[in-house]
Formats: sequence, C-alpha cells, structure tokens
Amino acid sequence: MTGSPFERLRERLAEVSDLTKAATLLLWDQRVMMPPGGAGARAEALATVSRLAQERFIDDEVGRLLEELRGLEESSDYDSFEASLVRTTRREYEKAQRVPPELVGEMRRASALGLAAWGPAKESSDFEQLRPHLEGQLELRHRYIACFSPPEETYDVLLDDYEPLMKTAEVRVVFDELKQELVPLIEEVGGAGEIDDSFLNGDFEPATQRELGIEIARAFGYTDDEWRLDETGHPFMTSPGAGDIRLTSNFRPNDLSSLFATMHEFGHGVYEWGVDRKLARTPLGSGVSLAVHESQSRSWENLVGRSRPFWRWFYPRLQEAFSGQLGSVDEEAFYRAVNKVQPSLIRIDADEVTYNMHIILRFELEQDLIGDRIEVAGLPDAWNARMEEYLGVQVPDAAHGVLQDMHWAGGALGYFPTYALGNVISVQIWERALDDLGDLDERFESGDFSDLRDWLREHLYSLGAKFTPQETIERVTGSRIDAKPYLRYLREKLAPQVA
Amino acid sequence: MTGSPFERLRERLAEVSDLTKAATLLLWDQRVMMPPGGAGARAEALATVSRLAQERFIDDEVGRLLEELRGLEESSDYDSFEASLVRTTRREYEKAQRVPPELVGEMRRASALGLAAWGPAKESSDFEQLRPHLEGQLELRHRYIACFSPPEETYDVLLDDYEPLMKTAEVRVVFDELKQELVPLIEEVGGAGEIDDSFLNGDFEPATQRELGIEIARAFGYTDDEWRLDETGHPFMTSPGAGDIRLTSNFRPNDLSSLFATMHEFGHGVYEWGVDRKLARTPLGSGVSLAVHESQSRSWENLVGRSRPFWRWFYPRLQEAFSGQLGSVDEEAFYRAVNKVQPSLIRIDADEVTYNMHIILRFELEQDLIGDRIEVAGLPDAWNARMEEYLGVQVPDAAHGVLQDMHWAGGALGYFPTYALGNVISVQIWERALDDLGDLDERFESGDFSDLRDWLREHLYSLGAKFTPQETIERVTGSRIDAKPYLRYLREKLAPQVA
Repeated sequence: MTGSPFERLRERLAEVSDLTKAATLLLWDQRVMMPPGGAGARAEALATVSRLAQERFIDDEVGRLLEELRGLEESSDYDSFEASLVRTTRREYEKAQRVPPELVGEMRRASALGLAAWGPAKESSDFEQLRPHLEGQLELRHRYIACFSPPEETYDVLLDDYEPLMKTAEVRVVFDELKQELVPLIEEVGGAGEIDDSFLNGDFEPATQRELGIEIARAFGYTDDEWRLDETGHPFMTSPGAGDIRLTSNFRPNDLSSLFATMHEFGHGVYEWGVDRKLARTPLGSGVSLAVHESQSRSWENLVGRSRPFWRWFYPRLQEAFSGQLGSVDEEAFYRAVNKVQPSLIRIDADEVTYNMHIILRFELEQDLIGDRIEVAGLPDAWNARMEEYLGVQVPDAAHGVLQDMHWAGGALGYFPTYALGNVISVQIWERALDDLGDLDERFESGDFSDLRDWLREHLYSLGAKFTPQETIERVTGSRIDAKPYLRYLREKLAPQVA
Repeated sequence: MTGSPFERLRERLAEVSDLTKAATLLLWDQRVMMPPGGAGARAEALATVSRLAQERFIDDEVGRLLEELRGLEESSDYDSFEASLVRTTRREYEKAQRVPPELVGEMRRASALGLAAWGPAKESSDFEQLRPHLEGQLELRHRYIACFSPPEETYDVLLDDYEPLMKTAEVRVVFDELKQELVPLIEEVGGAGEIDDSFLNGDFEPATQRELGIEIARAFGYTDDEWRLDETGHPFMTSPGAGDIRLTSNFRPNDLSSLFATMHEFGHGVYEWGVDRKLARTPLGSGVSLAVHESQSRSWENLVGRSRPFWRWFYPRLQEAFSGQLGSVDEEAFYRAVNKVQPSLIRIDADEVTYNMHIILRFELEQDLIGDRIEVAGLPDAWNARMEEYLGVQVPDAAHGVLQDMHWAGGALGYFPTYALGNVISVQIWERALDDLGDLDERFESGDFSDLRDWLREHLYSLGAKFTPQETIERVTGSRIDAKPYLRYLREKLAPQVA
C-alpha cells in the first residue's frame, strides 16, 4: 500500500463504497427485475457482499489511519473535504466496530428473505405468512441493540441507523406537537364530504401515467443519460453509483397516485443526483439522513406537486391525456381533489395531514415491539385499534393494515419516523428557498423548476453527508428542527376546507 | 472458523461465488438497464468486486484446505461431489494464484470502460474511438499472459480462460478440417440466388417478436418464476444466481432474427438452469466451458429452431402474427429461407455454414494481435482483407466489420473459437440424444420439446463443471471433439441447395 495516510483511507473507503453500491444494485434488482426463483441465491449474495463491506470497513487498518489523520483533521478547515471525511468516517467507524460482520450478513440475508416473503403475504392478506420473518427480524434487532449496550434508550439504536445522532426523545417532542395540532384538525375536516374527488378513481391507462410521470420528471431535471424510471409494487429510489439514479413508481390503472409517487421519488433522486461528485466513493457521497432525504421527496411531491401553480402548468396536459375521465373537471376542482384531507387506510395514499398520523402510529408500535410491550402476534390487533383511535377508520384486512408496508418485513425498524420528520423539515427548507428566490408561482406555472432545483442543489444536495444531519439542517435553514413552519403551512392550506 | 476442512472450503468458495454472482449482476445491469451516466461508477464497482473475489479465492487458507483435503479426494469416488469439488478447485486455484488481484481488478475496470465505449464507437462506425481501449486491452492481456511464463503457446493462456485445458493446436486441427470442407462448399452455394428470402425483410413489430420469442421459449422450458427476457444491443445470457436465468435478445423491426437469438440464448439459459442445484455456490455450479455452452445455444437455435418439424409446429403461429408479411409464404418457402446459405457481413446473422468462417477469421486475427504480427491500428484493414478472402464480401464500414462484436472491446480475446467448437460439439451430442430418444420429429411438430430437454439435463446440464470439458464431452458423446458429424450434418442439410 502506497500513498499518504489520507489517500490510503480514501482507497479503503472507496472499496467499501463499491461493495455497498454492489449491494444497492442487488437490492434494486431484487425488487424491480429479479424472477422470484432467484430469491435464495440473492439473499446469500447480499449477505456476503454486506458482510465483506463491514469487514473491510472495521478493519484495524482503518482505525490506525484515522488515528494517523487526527493531525490533518485538526489542521484543516472544518468545512474542508479532508476534515469532513476524517470526522464522519471516525464517527461511523466507531459505531460499525461494535457490530460483528457476521451479524451484518445475517441481517442482510434475513432482510432479503423477509422482503421476498412480504409480497406473497400481502397478496393473500395473510399475516401468519410473514409472522416468522418479523419475529426473526425482531430477534436480530435485539442482538444488534445488544452491541451498543447499554443504550440510553433502546429505540435510539434503531433510529440512529436512519437518522444519525437523533434521539427518540427529540422525535417524541416533534411528534407530540404534531399530534396535538393534527388530531383536532383532522376531526374538524373529518366530514370533508363537500370536496368531490370521485373523478380520481376511474380508468387511467398505466402506460400514459408513466409517460406523464416522465414528462413531469424531465421538467424537474430527469435526463435519460443519468436516470431511469421502472415499475415496482412499492415505489422507492436508489442510486447504485454516481450518475445513475433509479426511480420506481407503481402505475395503478384506477387512479393517478403514480404521478405523486414519481414526483416523490424524483425528490429523493435529485438529492442523490445533486451531491458533489467529488464526494463519490466516500461515506460523504450520499444524502445525509433519511429525514432530510424525505424532506426533499415531500417537497417535490407536495410543496411543488400539489401546488396550484404546478397544476396551472400541468393540468391541461393531464386533462388532454385523460380527456374521457377529466374532460369535464376544471383545474380548481382537480386541485382541491388532490389536496383533499380525509382519513384513510393506506399510508402512501394519505393526504398531507393524515399522513403524519400513519407515521406516529408506526413509531409507537415500533417502540412497543422493541420494548416487548406487544408481541409480533399481537401486531395486527394493535395496529387496527390504533388506526381507529387516530384516524377513525376500520381496517378490513391485513393487506390494508399491518401488511401494507414492506419496511418491517425487511427489518427496517426505526425508519418510519424519518418520514414525518421529513415533512417538518421540508417546509423549513422551503421557506428559506422562497426567501432567496422570491415567489416561484410564475416560474412553476410556466413549467420552469430550475431555480428551485439549482437553489436546493447549491444549498443542500451538494453538501452530501459532510456535516451531521443537525448541522446540515441548521446550515440550510438557520434553525434546528421545528414543527411550526410545517403546521402553519398545513393550516393555511386547509383553511378553505375547514372554513 | 469451525466445521470440517471440507465445510470450510465450501464456505470460502460460496463467498467467492457470491462475489462472482454480484459481478454478474453488475455486468448484466450495465448492458441491459444502467443509464450511460453510471458507467464510471460501475467500472469501479466491478473492479473492486472482482478483485476481492480473486483475493479471497487465492488466499493461503484455500491452499492449506486443499492440501488437507488430498486424503478426502483420494478416498472419494472420482465422480463424487467431494472429489470433484476438491479436484476442480485445486486446478482453478493453481491457475488463479498466478494472477495478482490488482491485475484482475484492472482488467475488469478496463473491460467495463471498453464495453461502454464500444456502443458509441459502433454507432458512429468510428474505429478510432475504440482503438485506445483495444490497445489497452491488448497490453493487459500481455501482462496477464506473463503471469504464466513461459507459456508453450501464447494464445493457449487466453483460450484456457474460456475453454479450460484446450490447446490452440487442437483448435487449429478442428478449424483446418472445417475450413477445408467449408470454403469449397460456400463457393458451391455461392450464387444461391434461387432461394427467395426477400420476405424475411419487412415490417415485423418488435413487441410481437418478443411475445413470439417468449411463446417458443415457454414451449422449450422457460417459466416466469425463474427466467426473464430483456432487450439489448448484443444478445447474451447470464445467470446472477441459481433459479435466476436472464436471456436477452434484440428485436429489430425489419427482420425476424430475434427469434433465433432468443432460441440461442434459451440454449445457454437452459444449460445453466439444468445444473444440479446442489452444485450452486461452488466452482462446479455452472456450465463447464464456453464451447460446451455454445453447443447448447446452437442446438436450440439451429438443430431445433431451424428444423422442419419445429417450423411445422410454429410456422402457422408466426404466419398468423405477421400475416401482412408472411400471408402468402408457405411453410416450405419459409423453412428454406431461414436456412439459406449466403456469405454476409455480420457474424450473428450468418447462416450455419458461413458462420464458422467468421469465427476462423477472428481466431486468426486474435493470434496475429497477441503475437504482435499486426497492430491494433491495422486491424480494420486486416479484417476487411480476410472477409474478402474467406467469404468474398466487401466490408463497407467498421460498424459492419471490425466493430460489429463487443468481445474485443471488453477484452475477451480467446473467446471466439468456442463458438465454432460449439457448432461441432452440438451435433456430436445431438446424435447421441437421437440414439436414445429415437426420432423427435413428431414430438417437435406438436410443440413438445420436453424429452430433448430432459435428456440434455440428465446427461449434460446436471453435471455442471464436475468434470473437465473434455471429460464431459466424452461422457456425453463417447468420443473426443470431432468435426465429422457436424460436417456430415451440414452437407445433408445443404444437399437440396447445392444440387
């Protein structure tokens, strides 16, 4: 091995990043392309690649290099690439060192198998099919948590994998504020019978939806050179390498939800796309946390994609494409329909307001599960009871209840809260963008989203993971995470419906 | 590390296999799915994964285990899984140990970048765009060959990667026999003006071609559970894991070549699919060599797919699907057209007879290149001159000449001869299948290919790489590689056209 300690560290981190990117592609492929017969082999491949990535990362050589580089870190500007890389790598190294590579491999294998079981279980709405997988996942999480013993709060360990350095107690503060405002607000708009959205259910050719989704994404910044859009059961975005952004959406023939899913995933994609390419193949070369990531998916889906100026631009095009269904629906009626607040069963279809209650429910159940206050077998009942309590809806079956999301099947506990945190952060960032850019309505009305995209790239995306999530949020917004701007936005938007 | 030495060896080999399968998927994705912007990152990921696979395989621990297992190997039946695994692994280990992992990684990176450059170069028919890549590949091959110094014959080293244990001199004997018979035969049918195949050029909707290809593949043994078929510029088959077979084809709107490409790739796929699943995640879990592999792709493409009974079954279906184009063409005319022998420019479109001359040309040029008898810059001229000499055709541009195949761009020198060897072997195996199964015409005419598939699975596919290619061929056919059955087959098939 030659080169300076910093170069040697970069080389080692590049290797770990390459393995992680290979795992990313293995996962994308499993969810989008792989024939089901490949699931067993894929789980093994994922386990091996992930275990090796962990082995190479926690190797003593990395520890030695990080020690050698303390001098460089201290003598370099805090914002410099060098200091940021050493600082962030040290934090991740100290955490990763606690987890045996075998456990990482085992978790990855269980995740791949759990995800493979989730589809059929949901298809047949049979919780029992998934139960053993969930129990296995929970046991693995207990073993994982034990690596960090004794954690201050058990759930903190899970949360930290998705939202580094965030504590459960901080989430609770934000969510309590949301709950306190939103539960009465949801009751207030509960009837909401006066908004007609019946025309959103009907006959919408999936291939046309896909074309329209691409058309919107292109206006936002999607290019054939660096992006793809595929179909999957549960939309997601992933990037198996710099310059390679993969969106997925679900083109259901009876509604237009794919358009919002595509805009949502575009938001994730443009964040990864905008990371400074100089950070590629390092731990800094990706979005900083899931909450900040979600702030961007929700910005493009909701703050842009459910806004009046957006639909002033795109509704004529949509109406033309689905003239049979929307020919007699005017823009205002359409705008109101896609913004209608109404409690419902499915998180990813939920409106901007009730969405947060879906998350809070999951956040609470996850804590109950990991705290052994409920058993996996009791999950469907607990789910259904809380859906009634928070949203006043009856869950008819597991497919529309506890089986709707794939996260738990894949072992992702601690992930859900980042969705609602993302909602909160999205408006904080949005307000700063408007401060700088002025009113964007006219630009959106003409289909021009470049100023917004460029501002976000400059102020947020390009930073990658150079700073902590909290530092990043503060640099962009000037303040810590704060629910008030988001609640103010919701109240303003809902004013006509509540009035 | 616990377990018996044999179990520890298996574990290590499983890890190497998982990494190789990850690389397989990275490559499949690059050629079928990846947006072009991802090429740089993909090359790095491929380099790292391949280098690690090599590092883990040539680790001293593998050598120690192989030594410890000599006793088990000697006390086990030659045909047993245990003896076969130790024997084959030792051979591969001794070879792999000579090659530094860094060189493996470098070759993989250059391959990915060369392949990424090949498409645009061919598109613009500009050899100069590819030349630096080819020069780099050649230099890497020289470094690779030097690892085996002094090789008896330089080209042997390259050939051995695709056709283990085969010597260049043996190939020459077979090819000389082919050349001696085929050159006059090609001249004899040279005019061939009397066979009308003009209706094979026309308007053939690609989506319909794809459906028909799948329909044929299903009759052969394709299932949605374990297979996929995608579109790509240059058809190929790959398997990123047991139970996961990926075919690709190229659905050109103006001809029906995709049907033959799909059957060809099915032949590769069914070989991988039929390998005993107990051999998965070991070096035995795949087809034994490229020539034997090609014998199967050519069997399903030509011996089945260009046979009269096959078209008796499928022609009515094809005619119905393309009634505008084929409505007035009868089955016999169609059969003769898809079997017409006529020298042409493009290897993958060539008929069964002239195909071999395309291969012999490449085999000779490869030896000239690696022997420094021609330079990369002189390749187009050398190519064009030899095309005229062997096939009497004028090459109009590089896209229809030296740039038509991607193999050299990816660094695959020594690969081409396996194609013609596969033709030869295909008929040797075919004759043994017919000996056992009797005449298959009636079964094919009714669309039933299961007896053939099952016979091939039992006698060939299931063996995987337990034995050497030569042993495998002898076990299945009872003889060594022999061009006579193939030449006899060609003469019989051509008799009507020559007469």
